[in-house]
Amino acid sequence: VVEIVTGLLDRGRETILVTRAGPEVREAVRVAVPDIEEDAQARLLWIARDQAQPAGTVTVVSAGTSDGPVVREVAVCTRLFGAHVRVQEDVGVAGLHRLALALPNLQEADCVVVVAGQDAALASVVGGLVASPVIAVPTSTGYGVAAGGISALLSMLTSCAAGVAVVNIDDGFGAATIAARIARAAAGAT
Amino acid sequence: VVEIVTGLLDRGRETILVTRAGPEVREAVRVAVPDIEEDAQARLLWIARDQAQPAGTVTVVSAGTSDGPVVREVAVCTRLFGAHVRVQEDVGVAGLHRLALALPNLQEADCVVVVAGQDAALASVVGGLVASPVIAVPTSTGYGVAAGGISALLSMLTSCAAGVAVVNIDDGFGAATIAARIARAAAGAT
Amino acid sequence: VVEIVTGLLDRGRETILVTRAGPEVREAVRVAVPDIEEDAQARLLWIARDQAQPAGTVTVVSAGTSDGPVVREVAVCTRLFGAHVRVQEDVGVAGLHRLALALPNLQEADCVVVVAGQDAALASVVGGLVASPVIAVPTSTGYGVAAGGISALLSMLTSCAAGVAVVNIDDGFGAATIAARIARAAAGAT
Amino acid sequence: VVEIVTGLLDRGRETILVTRAGPEVREAVRVAVPDIEEDAQARLLWIARDQAQPAGTVTVVSAGTSDGPVVREVAVCTRLFGAHVRVQEDVGVAGLHRLALALPNLQEADCVVVVAGQDAALASVVGGLVASPVIAVPTSTGYGVAAGGISALLSMLTSCAAGVAVVNIDDGFGAATIAARIARAAAGAT
Amino acid sequence: VVEIVTGLLDRGRETILVTRAGPEVREAVRVAVPDIEEDAQARLLWIARDQAQPAGTVTVVSAGTSDGPVVREVAVCTRLFGAHVRVQEDVGVAGLHRLALALPNLQEADCVVVVAGQDAALASVVGGLVASPVIAVPTSTGYGVAAGGISALLSMLTSCAAGVAVVNIDDGFGAATIAARIARAAAGAT
Amino acid sequence: VVEIVTGLLDRGRETILVTRAGPEVREAVRVAVPDIEEDAQARLLWIARDQAQPAGTVTVVSAGTSDGPVVREVAVCTRLFGAHVRVQEDVGVAGLHRLALALPNLQEADCVVVVAGQDAALASVVGGLVASPVIAVPTSTGYGVAAGGISALLSMLTSCAAGVAVVNIDDGFGAATIAARIARAAAGAT
Amino acid sequence: VVEIVTGLLDRGRETILVTRAGPEVREAVRVAVPDIEEDAQARLLWIARDQAQPAGTVTVVSAGTSDGPVVREVAVCTRLFGAHVRVQEDVGVAGLHRLALALPNLQEADCVVVVAGQDAALASVVGGLVASPVIAVPTSTGYGVAAGGISALLSMLTSCAAGVAVVNIDDGFGAATIAARIARAAAGAT
Amino acid sequence: VVEIVTGLLDRGRETILVTRAGPEVREAVRVAVPDIEEDAQARLLWIARDQAQPAGTVTVVSAGTSDGPVVREVAVCTRLFGAHVRVQEDVGVAGLHRLALALPNLQEADCVVVVAGQDAALASVVGGLVASPVIAVPTSTGYGVAAGGISALLSMLTSCAAGVAVVNIDDGFGAATIAARIARAAAGAT
Repeated sequence: VVEIVTGLLDRGRETILVTRAGPEVREAVRVAVPDIEEDAQARLLWIARDQAQPAGTVTVVSAGTSDGPVVREVAVCTRLFGAHVRVQEDVGVAGLHRLALALPNLQEADCVVVVAGQDAALASVVGGLVASPVIAVPTSTGYGVAAGGISALLSMLTSCAAGVAVVNIDDGFGAATIAARIARAAAGAT
Repeated sequence: VVEIVTGLLDRGRETILVTRAGPEVREAVRVAVPDIEEDAQARLLWIARDQAQPAGTVTVVSAGTSDGPVVREVAVCTRLFGAHVRVQEDVGVAGLHRLALALPNLQEADCVVVVAGQDAALASVVGGLVASPVIAVPTSTGYGVAAGGISALLSMLTSCAAGVAVVNIDDGFGAATIAARIARAAAGAT
Repeated sequence: VVEIVTGLLDRGRETILVTRAGPEVREAVRVAVPDIEEDAQARLLWIARDQAQPAGTVTVVSAGTSDGPVVREVAVCTRLFGAHVRVQEDVGVAGLHRLALALPNLQEADCVVVVAGQDAALASVVGGLVASPVIAVPTSTGYGVAAGGISALLSMLTSCAAGVAVVNIDDGFGAATIAARIARAAAGAT
Repeated sequence: VVEIVTGLLDRGRETILVTRAGPEVREAVRVAVPDIEEDAQARLLWIARDQAQPAGTVTVVSAGTSDGPVVREVAVCTRLFGAHVRVQEDVGVAGLHRLALALPNLQEADCVVVVAGQDAALASVVGGLVASPVIAVPTSTGYGVAAGGISALLSMLTSCAAGVAVVNIDDGFGAATIAARIARAAAGAT
Repeated sequence: VVEIVTGLLDRGRETILVTRAGPEVREAVRVAVPDIEEDAQARLLWIARDQAQPAGTVTVVSAGTSDGPVVREVAVCTRLFGAHVRVQEDVGVAGLHRLALALPNLQEADCVVVVAGQDAALASVVGGLVASPVIAVPTSTGYGVAAGGISALLSMLTSCAAGVAVVNIDDGFGAATIAARIARAAAGAT
Repeated sequence: VVEIVTGLLDRGRETILVTRAGPEVREAVRVAVPDIEEDAQARLLWIARDQAQPAGTVTVVSAGTSDGPVVREVAVCTRLFGAHVRVQEDVGVAGLHRLALALPNLQEADCVVVVAGQDAALASVVGGLVASPVIAVPTSTGYGVAAGGISALLSMLTSCAAGVAVVNIDDGFGAATIAARIARAAAGAT
Repeated sequence: VVEIVTGLLDRGRETILVTRAGPEVREAVRVAVPDIEEDAQARLLWIARDQAQPAGTVTVVSAGTSDGPVVREVAVCTRLFGAHVRVQEDVGVAGLHRLALALPNLQEADCVVVVAGQDAALASVVGGLVASPVIAVPTSTGYGVAAGGISALLSMLTSCAAGVAVVNIDDGFGAATIAARIARAAAGAT
Repeated sequence: VVEIVTGLLDRGRETILVTRAGPEVREAVRVAVPDIEEDAQARLLWIARDQAQPAGTVTVVSAGTSDGPVVREVAVCTRLFGAHVRVQEDVGVAGLHRLALALPNLQEADCVVVVAGQDAALASVVGGLVASPVIAVPTSTGYGVAAGGISALLSMLTSCAAGVAVVNIDDGFGAATIAARIARAAAGAT
């Protein structure tokens, strides 16, 4: 990874993003490229010397604290890809009052990203409450039949709400690529 | 089936229940046992000459019209097993206002049975709103990854709400056996 | 279905859409509601008396003729939901020259919907060629391990291209709900 | 976890339960909250300063020693949720005489919780012997096709006995939430 | 099939067995080979002009009436392969008293074949009660997660009882081939 | 485990068998019960103070060296359960000449146990060559789709050869319980 | 299909192949294109006005009569793609003597195609006997865990023999495309 | 492993190949057989004292750096089995221009091996561009539904391109055995 990053910088690349970077990789790259930015929870490294002006807003909503790393990955990547980000955590469907508090942030967004594992029902509920596109990210948190994220994936794919599409399990990066495109286009940026 | 039913009656059995009875079976039994009762949608046949006094209330709630046959099976069987039944259909999580209207019926029940296929998120949401035990029945309605009911089953098993247990796919009879026991015990009957 | 449709019309509903309507259902509804519109291949019935002005463009691209019904479902629904639609069929990855011909239509769209079964690789390839959001619809066409569409679903979820999200197998309606929202927002409509 | 627990205590919460807490988490919380209670085998931490008067009885029955941690989780949580608990271990279906000895405890309970992995047949057998509701917890003990608990889950869901419902694999906490509700209601508590 | 059977007879073969023969096949073969023997429920056709003297006893035990065709297939084939057969149906684990009645027949056999679908727990229970080898046949009867027989197969493979081995789903023929060999050898025949 | 073993010995038990005992468990038991016997490769511990006279012969055949631990488990347990054992390793179907050399040992046995993972085809081939019952043990060795042993399990269950039944993946103990019963009965022992 | 075929002919195409053509499709095409060639068992239609000179030999080997349609599909397509074909049916691993008779035909081929369902072990055995490349086609014949062909597919993929690769279930056409290329190249044709 | 290798050498074997050899195994063998050759990334050890003259060319193409170890395994083994090898890495379908650069190497090969995990679509695209046989190797790299390689395996098996066959996940050795045979035969070697 160090070789790839330094190679890209030598060739003049101004934006670099490394996903799923464990502690050793991050340490090694930091030594070689001291000004690299880092988010330990999201396991991300990045350099963004010439970033587009942010346009459009993506709201990231999740159910539990265990979904935190994927929420961070969505948030950091979405910002790098040029959209404003708001994060709304701890919004589970088993406590609808918390969802009520989050509603304005959800309804004002140009795109909503729902991150959930055991509480994957959140994608259906949010999909019924907003008019903008919803990107759902199943997470591999949880145990028993929830382990690995397949249960959350299936639950999100069969959502009865309109306007919901799904990315791979734990794929915060993938969700950010499409959410940022949607939000930027909705804000008139290209 | 005709042989089994007439055999049981000859031996003096006063309560008989036939589940998953198709049209031909129902027709054949009706010819042999004219006073048998029948529910075509639930595919049930029954005789109940000496039924217990109903006690306790079970509310059956479902999301869509395609879940109707299983809802009927839960309702008819629960009544036969000695509990009062209320039915609340068309309560999907993508339209929370309908759930708000159904809330009193749900919160007054001694046991709630949630019947859902593509909208299996309903079990989680209902589980967060009531204090009584919830029995969830996944249904095999739906298409794509929802086909066969496995997606609904997994979604209900991983519900984050407290107080939820699950029966086999399309097993309205099984849900009724446990829901009636719970409701009758809560009402002080045995 | 007839009851539901006539009930909605009686209550003044101006837009109605029935999906997955087989020949008997379509015939029955046509008798009761003669001015209902219909698409036999897409198994759709609809009335759209007060439709929004179309805004934004969705290009639907598919690999083979067997994906036709889902392509039609995406196309008809997207138009009903208020976006312009272009359709580009017979664009398989095993013949990249056909993809080259389709490229202008793909790159000018505000949102691209890829419909594919055995040729699910198309989602990755298209995702690498366009800058707008891509919604992928796996189809259940094909045989052997492709039967039922799970193989296409997994293939699309693991696409390495940026900007791709996925809906349920054969869910042309679902793809249209999100694609139309994306395209309309990108065109400044709400 | 330490932050969450101390935060809840600072805000005056009198009942706190932490599930699936590994040794490091338990150690860290004990340092911050010295009077927290703990069950190492069940991986639980809890504070219960204002607990309801216990009402109703739940009997927890299991087959083998490897199911012990889940049995403990059910037992501790059920007590915290306000029901009396009896535990009956080492009751496998391959030795029916041990089941005969356990029968009085099973038949006197307001609710029976069956915890089993390779011996999941126990849920069917117990379901045929008691008149109260049965909650079955599949465990992930075992090897080969039993590994992970899917085999036990399917076996319990297809039980032919009446009155049996199932929770997620290894979900002792979930079983306790519904079992305690059932037992308390049967005992007239609310 | 007709060609194969008549070809074998022409070449002097004295024992022929056709499994999984539907009504049309059976009708066609009967026309061509009038003295062929037939079992409609087991879907078998056979000619056995020079059969070995039966030796040893196989007891076939099953849970429900829906397992009947496979029970018949085991019984007819085992007799053809040279062992005595006893059949004990309607012995489900949810009613252990019926199993008590069947016990002598089970304990006197040289080999026991357990045929069960939803009640696959029967294999474990029988395995704990007899000292002779047990061959378990999962059946594809049942619905929901029991459909197709995978649940019964897994349940039988993870049985905790000693002396149990399993054949393919619905494979009454396969069970008979091994059960007859075991019983004949135990009776000193070869 | 130490407690269970010493408890059984204190109560006068003369035969004890511990399966799947890892190095730490074996060390701990050896300290407490110095005369316990041990097989490290098979992960077994046992005491057999009053063993039956061996009767009948079981031949254990396997394909590759990686199946060694399960072969050892079958061999040791079968001896403990009272049958003679012969072991024939390195007999893969991709080299039929080695199978030819092993044939006499296979054909003289009262029962053959086939242990195989990637080379599960061996069960079919052996089943076609011997007249005695065959017990097949799928192993979890191998990688890719062979990982975990499911592929071997399915392959063995669908064997076209007569007289083959299957036990759980890696379940050498289970295979030994039934193989020893078969061999002893065939030799006239009880 | 008729439209596509006549369209291709109008545009001067000299070679056309339609796979998986049911009886109605074949009838309709025959009416429109009377000189089209047909193989009912293989469900193929074709026109080959300008075929390459055959070069190289492919031997197709299968286990049972139920694999016949796929064998025919491989054979007809391989001939159309320009290689000589030999067919060797009824060669199951449970009867190795038949395989011995087929050996010369297998060892002289430039490429061997193995077609098998329940007897998928045949691919491993053949792979161990020949020096040329082996293409394995799993078939969906069979019942229980063999149904659908997944078991055969996994078995063939985990073959321990060298030189074996696999195509999709029932994909005789796919096997022919690669087998013909291999055989033609081995014979020096291009 | 050390024993096996030295044993083979003692018996005069001139070619030895050890696959999936971890660092400890490689170290141990090197100590015992100092002149053994080694590829750490491919986890291979080999001695090849009397190798055939290379004939024919295999081009190995892969998508990402994480597929590197399997690419190395294919390359080293193919060379040992007697064919020339060219390697073309970093050719993903999301960037078709890189594929264009690799095209000459692909089209000149006698056999192409495609190694890919998340980018399994590469097999379809390459299959559409070359006339020689294509062997596809799914890899277990990737996360979410791509984890373990099943998604890549299914994607490659359902490829619409002609002339593609597949080996087990991560089975670079298996791919090399068939690719080398194809290439050598195409070059007229035997």
